[in-house]
Amino acid sequence: MGDTIKYLLEEDQIPKYWYNIAADMPEAPPVLHPGTGQPIGPDDLAPLFPMELIMQEVSQEREIEIPEPVRDIYRQWRPTPLYRARRLEKELDTPAKIYYKYEGVSPTGSHKPNTAVPQAFYNKEAGVKNIATETGAGQWGSSLAFAGKIFGINVKVFMVKVSFQQKPYRKALMETFGAECIASPSDQTQSGKAILAEHPDSTGSLGIAISEAVEVAATNDDTKYALGSVLNHVLTHQTILGQEAMIQMDMAGDYPDILVGCTGGGSNFAGLCFPYIGAKLRGGPDVKVVAVEPAACPTLTRGEYAYDYGDTAHLAPMVKMHTLGSAFVPPGFHAGGLRYHGMASQISQLQEMGMLEAKAYHQNTCFEAGVQFARAEGITPAPEATHAVRGAIDEALKCKEEGVGKTILFNLCGHGHFDMQAYIDYFAGKLKDEDYDQDELAMALAGLPKVAAE
Amino acid sequence: MGDTIKYLLEEDQIPKYWYNIAADMPEAPPVLHPGTGQPIGPDDLAPLFPMELIMQEVSQEREIEIPEPVRDIYRQWRPTPLYRARRLEKELDTPAKIYYKYEGVSPTGSHKPNTAVPQAFYNKEAGVKNIATETGAGQWGSSLAFAGKIFGINVKVFMVKVSFQQKPYRKALMETFGAECIASPSDQTQSGKAILAEHPDSTGSLGIAISEAVEVAATNDDTKYALGSVLNHVLTHQTILGQEAMIQMDMAGDYPDILVGCTGGGSNFAGLCFPYIGAKLRGGPDVKVVAVEPAACPTLTRGEYAYDYGDTAHLAPMVKMHTLGSAFVPPGFHAGGLRYHGMASQISQLQEMGMLEAKAYHQNTCFEAGVQFARAEGITPAPEATHAVRGAIDEALKCKEEGVGKTILFNLCGHGHFDMQAYIDYFAGKLKDEDYDQDELAMALAGLPKVAAE
Repeated sequence: MGDTIKYLLEEDQIPKYWYNIAADMPEAPPVLHPGTGQPIGPDDLAPLFPMELIMQEVSQEREIEIPEPVRDIYRQWRPTPLYRARRLEKELDTPAKIYYKYEGVSPTGSHKPNTAVPQAFYNKEAGVKNIATETGAGQWGSSLAFAGKIFGINVKVFMVKVSFQQKPYRKALMETFGAECIASPSDQTQSGKAILAEHPDSTGSLGIAISEAVEVAATNDDTKYALGSVLNHVLTHQTILGQEAMIQMDMAGDYPDILVGCTGGGSNFAGLCFPYIGAKLRGGPDVKVVAVEPAACPTLTRGEYAYDYGDTAHLAPMVKMHTLGSAFVPPGFHAGGLRYHGMASQISQLQEMGMLEAKAYHQNTCFEAGVQFARAEGITPAPEATHAVRGAIDEALKCKEEGVGKTILFNLCGHGHFDMQAYIDYFAGKLKDEDYDQDELAMALAGLPKVAAE
Repeated sequence: MGDTIKYLLEEDQIPKYWYNIAADMPEAPPVLHPGTGQPIGPDDLAPLFPMELIMQEVSQEREIEIPEPVRDIYRQWRPTPLYRARRLEKELDTPAKIYYKYEGVSPTGSHKPNTAVPQAFYNKEAGVKNIATETGAGQWGSSLAFAGKIFGINVKVFMVKVSFQQKPYRKALMETFGAECIASPSDQTQSGKAILAEHPDSTGSLGIAISEAVEVAATNDDTKYALGSVLNHVLTHQTILGQEAMIQMDMAGDYPDILVGCTGGGSNFAGLCFPYIGAKLRGGPDVKVVAVEPAACPTLTRGEYAYDYGDTAHLAPMVKMHTLGSAFVPPGFHAGGLRYHGMASQISQLQEMGMLEAKAYHQNTCFEAGVQFARAEGITPAPEATHAVRGAIDEALKCKEEGVGKTILFNLCGHGHFDMQAYIDYFAGKLKDEDYDQDELAMALAGLPKVAAE
């Protein structure tokens, strides 16, 4: 056996069910209406989502069947490969075994189509003609553009302005798939106009872009909203990758001691980790779970576990989560997909349960790890994914120090082919390790809503 | 069965041999020394290539064994998928069946690593420490950078200036893999300086970049040269993709009536078509073979079949091929990988034998086809690959006109994730359908060398 160790599955091994971790967790704190602060029901969400997705959002069923038309589209790139990073192991001279699941083989180069496809499918089944959404780095926006085109749905994407400017090629990809892409904050919505009035130079944030997309959906009968992370049903859809990884690790004859994923809203992290965490919750093997986030937007390591709005303009429901405050706008670092002020409610709850360890890194050390990985393994990670690479390498180096050969599995959630400007800036020494503004964070946290449910 | 029809192979179905079409063709015209005009032998090429590659270049063996370390690296992304383009067929409302082999899943997003890996391997076996090469769009340069890093060889890439300026992210990818990338013509070589002295604003050409790389190899004992297309051994390495496709078409229960590939130097075209053409030459099924080239660099449709230099400075050997003249510099269109003045000798010989049909297209109609393909199939083709897409769609539309359900197989040799500026320009209506300069072509053809062998 040589250096390349790849574990592939047959097409008929694509899971037939998504795994819903809600079935194995304590009851979740209720979602609250942004206006009244009272718990909301499915009907309150109906202006934004088709009922099938709302039912998945509140489902307690452990298995949710993947519709055949969705599995059919998945087959274009799934099952994705799982690799053992033998050349990286040698480079690090570590006794650890490093495995990674690689989602960059999808048509848009990341894990995002795993949920874009079912979301577009359920909207189509409900007769929806238009979807509005937001995007950070553009991975979600281009994935929904891809999925929307397949199912004949028009897609409008509000893209965080700093990423819109950094990544014109992501916009071009969305347009190639026939979608419309607008820099956020924009003058197309009341939410956007309000931000621009106060901060004409706003670089935008996911919270602002969500407000704009939600507003468009809420004010147009023929338009629904879609979110690329954070929500329960999105995390559930991503478990397809973790379930595949479990089968592939079985093929490898290994079980991970340590799981590593990067966390923005939490969807790729959940995709890999939830099936393993669920097994542990049901009495299965222990596993250490490491969530790696950017130091400039440190939701899990510096945020409060509290009710907060999902968006800046307070149009989206309030959920209990680790949050930096919906008014918080992080600096414009390159991992645009990790710039959300909050964290998925389910992941936040798991952290409160002591099920995971969170770590925050600045971007230069992440790109250093990304380059080391690319040179060893031949795949250039997306800026978001470099956080997971950094986390995995640090765990492997700790194994070396301790002389123990643990098994590490991380999620390489996307390739960096659209993000090469970040690598150019890194090589040129131009990447700043910016911190968030302490005063701004304090103000944003002070502005958290007071709700009766707490 | 739904819309997605993908044919995957097991890893142990990766071919163990490359197919060498020389075994099934009439004797090839000899390669001539650029200085003396006399036929050259293996020793004359020894300053440029390791002997194992030289032996492959002149081999008459039908099967050339793929070394296990090369197969091991291939396993990272091979076997690549073969798809049936069902959604495109529906969109075109054609009775034709359209299949495509997809090479964009490689680490650098094209078919180029298929030969970069063995070339780096044989150089390493020969103790070579440095390789100089040229690149057009950057797909070859980034692939050799990837392969060089794996085998511990330093790679220096001369990149055609117009592509260097259009595609800074390709350069960044090469640097991420640890290679050095220089705009050509450069002041690092005599060949480059001579061009710059005469044409300070030269946008470069593959012919010039080859001269620079060959010069560096010829004048440095510790440096060899590598070429990403044109040469027999390069075409041979690419047959791995066509051999896989043959097995996959067997799985589909189909045999192609029509093969389509885009042609620059000819390597991706040869990779798909040579195994099928070889079968035909040995008495197997007939197959129509369509070579699609850019109208701005129409080697097969407008070039002469004559001896010519492989490069602008006449440092590389003379081969008999379809050529526009080594002094010909095509306009700066986006498919940088198709801007070579000549065509692989073996492909030229096959055209003379009546084994293929050549077509030339301008770039706007190719991008139109590329967008149509992306919206139907979800994969954004590289500018080079849009030529093959255009050719395949036109064959499918002809089937529709004629009411015949032929089987079309084309090679989608790479994705366009590094080429989105071309799509931006296309959508903005800024892409020019430039023709070559007629006078320049006439002059370049008039300057073809007179050699005794003809």
